[in-house]
Amino acid sequence: MPKSAKLKIAIVGATGYTGLVLTELLLAHPKVEIQSLISESYAGKKFTDIYPAFTGLLAQTCAKPSLKLLQKADLVFFATPNGIAHKLAPALIKAGIKVIDLSADYRLRDLKSYEKAYGFKRKDKNLNAKSIYALAEFKRKDIAKNPAVIANPGCYTTASILALTPLLQAHKSGKIKLDLDSIIIDAKSGTSGAGRKAATEQLYAEINESISAYKAAGQHRHVPELEAFFAELTRQKTTISFTPHLVPMTRGLLATCYIRLNSKTSVEALRKLYAQAYAKEPFVELLAPGIQPQTKWVLGTNRALVQIELDKRNNQITVTSVIDNLIKGAAGQAVQNMNIIMGYPEVMGLALAPMLP
Amino acid sequence: MPKSAKLKIAIVGATGYTGLVLTELLLAHPKVEIQSLISESYAGKKFTDIYPAFTGLLAQTCAKPSLKLLQKADLVFFATPNGIAHKLAPALIKAGIKVIDLSADYRLRDLKSYEKAYGFKRKDKNLNAKSIYALAEFKRKDIAKNPAVIANPGCYTTASILALTPLLQAHKSGKIKLDLDSIIIDAKSGTSGAGRKAATEQLYAEINESISAYKAAGQHRHVPELEAFFAELTRQKTTISFTPHLVPMTRGLLATCYIRLNSKTSVEALRKLYAQAYAKEPFVELLAPGIQPQTKWVLGTNRALVQIELDKRNNQITVTSVIDNLIKGAAGQAVQNMNIIMGYPEVMGLALAPMLP
Amino acid sequence: MPKSAKLKIAIVGATGYTGLVLTELLLAHPKVEIQSLISESYAGKKFTDIYPAFTGLLAQTCAKPSLKLLQKADLVFFATPNGIAHKLAPALIKAGIKVIDLSADYRLRDLKSYEKAYGFKRKDKNLNAKSIYALAEFKRKDIAKNPAVIANPGCYTTASILALTPLLQAHKSGKIKLDLDSIIIDAKSGTSGAGRKAATEQLYAEINESISAYKAAGQHRHVPELEAFFAELTRQKTTISFTPHLVPMTRGLLATCYIRLNSKTSVEALRKLYAQAYAKEPFVELLAPGIQPQTKWVLGTNRALVQIELDKRNNQITVTSVIDNLIKGAAGQAVQNMNIIMGYPEVMGLALAPMLP
Amino acid sequence: MPKSAKLKIAIVGATGYTGLVLTELLLAHPKVEIQSLISESYAGKKFTDIYPAFTGLLAQTCAKPSLKLLQKADLVFFATPNGIAHKLAPALIKAGIKVIDLSADYRLRDLKSYEKAYGFKRKDKNLNAKSIYALAEFKRKDIAKNPAVIANPGCYTTASILALTPLLQAHKSGKIKLDLDSIIIDAKSGTSGAGRKAATEQLYAEINESISAYKAAGQHRHVPELEAFFAELTRQKTTISFTPHLVPMTRGLLATCYIRLNSKTSVEALRKLYAQAYAKEPFVELLAPGIQPQTKWVLGTNRALVQIELDKRNNQITVTSVIDNLIKGAAGQAVQNMNIIMGYPEVMGLALAPMLP
Repeated sequence: MPKSAKLKIAIVGATGYTGLVLTELLLAHPKVEIQSLISESYAGKKFTDIYPAFTGLLAQTCAKPSLKLLQKADLVFFATPNGIAHKLAPALIKAGIKVIDLSADYRLRDLKSYEKAYGFKRKDKNLNAKSIYALAEFKRKDIAKNPAVIANPGCYTTASILALTPLLQAHKSGKIKLDLDSIIIDAKSGTSGAGRKAATEQLYAEINESISAYKAAGQHRHVPELEAFFAELTRQKTTISFTPHLVPMTRGLLATCYIRLNSKTSVEALRKLYAQAYAKEPFVELLAPGIQPQTKWVLGTNRALVQIELDKRNNQITVTSVIDNLIKGAAGQAVQNMNIIMGYPEVMGLALAPMLP
Repeated sequence: MPKSAKLKIAIVGATGYTGLVLTELLLAHPKVEIQSLISESYAGKKFTDIYPAFTGLLAQTCAKPSLKLLQKADLVFFATPNGIAHKLAPALIKAGIKVIDLSADYRLRDLKSYEKAYGFKRKDKNLNAKSIYALAEFKRKDIAKNPAVIANPGCYTTASILALTPLLQAHKSGKIKLDLDSIIIDAKSGTSGAGRKAATEQLYAEINESISAYKAAGQHRHVPELEAFFAELTRQKTTISFTPHLVPMTRGLLATCYIRLNSKTSVEALRKLYAQAYAKEPFVELLAPGIQPQTKWVLGTNRALVQIELDKRNNQITVTSVIDNLIKGAAGQAVQNMNIIMGYPEVMGLALAPMLP
Repeated sequence: MPKSAKLKIAIVGATGYTGLVLTELLLAHPKVEIQSLISESYAGKKFTDIYPAFTGLLAQTCAKPSLKLLQKADLVFFATPNGIAHKLAPALIKAGIKVIDLSADYRLRDLKSYEKAYGFKRKDKNLNAKSIYALAEFKRKDIAKNPAVIANPGCYTTASILALTPLLQAHKSGKIKLDLDSIIIDAKSGTSGAGRKAATEQLYAEINESISAYKAAGQHRHVPELEAFFAELTRQKTTISFTPHLVPMTRGLLATCYIRLNSKTSVEALRKLYAQAYAKEPFVELLAPGIQPQTKWVLGTNRALVQIELDKRNNQITVTSVIDNLIKGAAGQAVQNMNIIMGYPEVMGLALAPMLP
Repeated sequence: MPKSAKLKIAIVGATGYTGLVLTELLLAHPKVEIQSLISESYAGKKFTDIYPAFTGLLAQTCAKPSLKLLQKADLVFFATPNGIAHKLAPALIKAGIKVIDLSADYRLRDLKSYEKAYGFKRKDKNLNAKSIYALAEFKRKDIAKNPAVIANPGCYTTASILALTPLLQAHKSGKIKLDLDSIIIDAKSGTSGAGRKAATEQLYAEINESISAYKAAGQHRHVPELEAFFAELTRQKTTISFTPHLVPMTRGLLATCYIRLNSKTSVEALRKLYAQAYAKEPFVELLAPGIQPQTKWVLGTNRALVQIELDKRNNQITVTSVIDNLIKGAAGQAVQNMNIIMGYPEVMGLALAPMLP
């Protein structure tokens, strides 16, 4: 395309929460033009009929998903439920259209594991094999040159990987020793992570003033993602204890991660691992000692804030990380990946200041 | 200053909630440079000590308020409690520095009314007389050429004026007839409007899951502002019934305004008044018929959404308007005013998309 | 029944929010025994399958609605959607079973008005004519001797009537003069008022951090109830301006009521009207001067708190009242009515202390 | 005292949140009479001046703490900040007055550990030595006959002990094998746990829509309590990893507890341990398989709900438990203890139904 032209974008699943946030971010992105907003449920309706907040800002009408329409775009985002992207992506990739998938379809290289977790049979083995688990902070170069689907990580996974990877890398390189079998991730998410579907258990009156765990003891679908990532990183199979929790807030995600240290390492030395790992990262910050990150501090941003503490009594490490589940955990990370593959500055359209109070 | 140089900004009261939001907005504004963050209570501390959310984004240390420091700026914002700006503004204006005051100090031309409502004696009568009540939508030209203090309207007042002015203008011009004595404004605000001061009645456990009125029956300090604005507009003294309410949410403000119609006018004709009044306004939208605005729809934006309904049974008009109390109701409006006086595009740094869900 | 025996209760619609709260209250009531919990949607399921919170407290299984089953009860509560009670009540009343209806079916004596508001054709004109709009504070004696259906008032109506009736009574008796055409009720409710139905607009992520009006300008179905009650009271047709609002909280309801005073009456004299009207009421309190009621203060109780203020500048009266919409506004009031018709102490099972913070 | 007479109660610290809830519970308790409400900060003020919600329910005026006044009571509750009860309790116990302390003063038998955690020097070693850590479910008999101070456990400790004790007992008796070094407790509490003190970090606008950890890595003061209890139970020193979190809700506490299983035990066998341990407990329930407890389900009750899951992949046990931090975690448990020492039915005044939604 000519250098001056804007990148033509289609968003499949534009009216769900991740699609909505993607639409918000792309509306403000200087290099792109939203060409089509695709919605199975609201096809034919104006976007402002569903979200009147956009009155005066966005005049488009939602369209049905169709290959014909999608092929007019330069880049297609899938912000769909799981099981949809893998049906459309092969034809798009074949037609030279870039695809960023925010669903889980292309996250697992092991399709058996995918089918077990998600229940969909897959016919796109080759494409899946070439696709990439696109966590920018640790896969930037591979994303930049990837020819297949860019698989956007899940929200819980993103926070957990950002929290633990500097430690695991140091373990791999021998700087510190960890008990990899001791990893426990106790994660807490706002309710928007469940998406915008009418369900009695997601009603305000059910969620408000209440916290609970769900899908404990390894039942959550982000577990295979996490274990695959860590196995690739450490070259060692690890089974992670993961418990997600539903918190009475709309957005925000906190991962409290526990791992046992088996070497004599000071907390200062552990901090240094993070400081170095994230020194050049535009979106990840290690907080000053003693300051625990709050999810609100990253609300509306593509940032992650991280803290690490060490209980000297039992050599237990606690790492906490916070993200906005819909931005760094979904739509923002997808835009970051788009910036990488298009060669735009990585922060373009994402230099969002914190939105406090 | 040279065309290429950035506008040097000082924010007095940078660590309160309006100062905080102003800081957020100005951080992202392409034409300005935050030169100093002034905080009486936190002088000497890094801004990130108070708001760790800004780690990696803002390295400045808060300074004590001093004329010497303020005079290095091109433009000074006062995001201070009432009673402070009027002590410093005269010297700043004299020194050719532009002043935008987000407190109430320069909102009332009648200083007796000011002293009654706020309790501060004033020595700056001349400056006060020349200053302007700067609601951009209705005072744009005057703001642009004003040589004195730009007095930013209060949050309740902003929402109420945007809700009622098209009607009052039509009454003034004879297009419709209203019972001006019947104006009732029932306003609802998030708790950030009370500022960031430690007070038991503002604790989470006191506010959450509860709504109440406060300062009912004309006791709220925004009443004189409102009545002065409407008296100037209609050339008729009006006494307004105003009841503010505290809502369990951080941000957002809804004004539900009632006024009796004394002419036979259809709701369509009333809608047309708003459509025309706001046709060219970048930040105000009339919603489609039947859609009541929600405060969340403007959260994080400088926008106002308005709706008007008519009960034909008793000719009662109900107008609703929503704003983000800290943006359109405070810091955003202040930036909008800065853009106007500096000749920047009015939407610069304020083209914020809705932040849903 | 023998004096020692407990009153056998059936709750139709036990799994909706009002049915749920009714179940909670009746579980703790010393004179009753819950005989059957009726639920169309969950028939055959254990109550604890739907509400595991009752594990160990309530072993019953939900049953389908059937006349045969209901006729085993001494008293049947309808906590159903509108349009159901009127089909079953006639046979029950005929069989000598007491009926308390929490839906709107028996609230309006004028069936045309009912059919217009609710859309259901009615065949039970005689029963409807004899039934009673059972607001205990003003209809206690009539409730006690009523042979037909006890129609429990709506939540908005209850708060509004408790707020305005002492004034209207004084107007009727000539003690004060009011402009009856000036009544405006701006009401705010928690979301549980919408019931427990899966709907995207009731999701946590849609409701949280947002307030809005809905069904403004006389469109809400509680308007005919209110106008009928006030017309009966004042012997004068009055058209009320009523705007309900949805507040981000689960429970609680605040009515802010405005009426113009046309006589010279002091606020102290107005307070006296309320003090006298509610002196012997177990569930209604006038607060001390200057204290505005908060909805949280009545949460979990059957109480109403009221405040009255007068703006002397324009003789505008503002009355505020708060209730727990699910207790005094629904299930609690129903138990209060049960106590009245059964001759139990009126506060039995309802002497609930405030539940702060 | 004569059998018919009511037990005279003094509540020291009646206006803090635990004192408030204690007042609410005791108001409804059939066997007691609140003789004095003691408040250092509000002495001389009516209780309804501080909490107008009690208008019409409680006419008492708060009094200064004095031994003279306290000695008129039969039983004194300390709902005070730490460091106060230990100054007054010795004289009260000497005078034959019963003392239940909701603060931490008498929770630790090891005073060095107390002084390290709380910073207060103690002169009451004998009394402390004889006092009892009064978690009713596991110390019922000892509480009943205890002559010294009844030390009410902390909220986090209560939830954690109820979650883990059946497992630890089974380990002690050899039924199962656990890795005691692997205990991790990730706890989540509503904000009322921080008490009613004005602090900017407890403002609604700071807490709402945000979750964060605090005092991680063994820094929280409930850690010594927990470790002491488990050491006594297992006869083995255990170091627990404990991370408390602040959740945007007023009340409720969830403990997610992790422990590694070293024996081949099925989840059904683990469930049986809980079913047996709590079979006769009036306030603790094991939920049906697959149902994770929500904090809201115990709101307003003295109940605890527990769930246990086993990840067979790595033999990791996850136990979750929920309580209302102000009732079972503080005031309710104190009333339960009062019932035990007075020989009242243990559930008296505490048979509170769930308060949903």
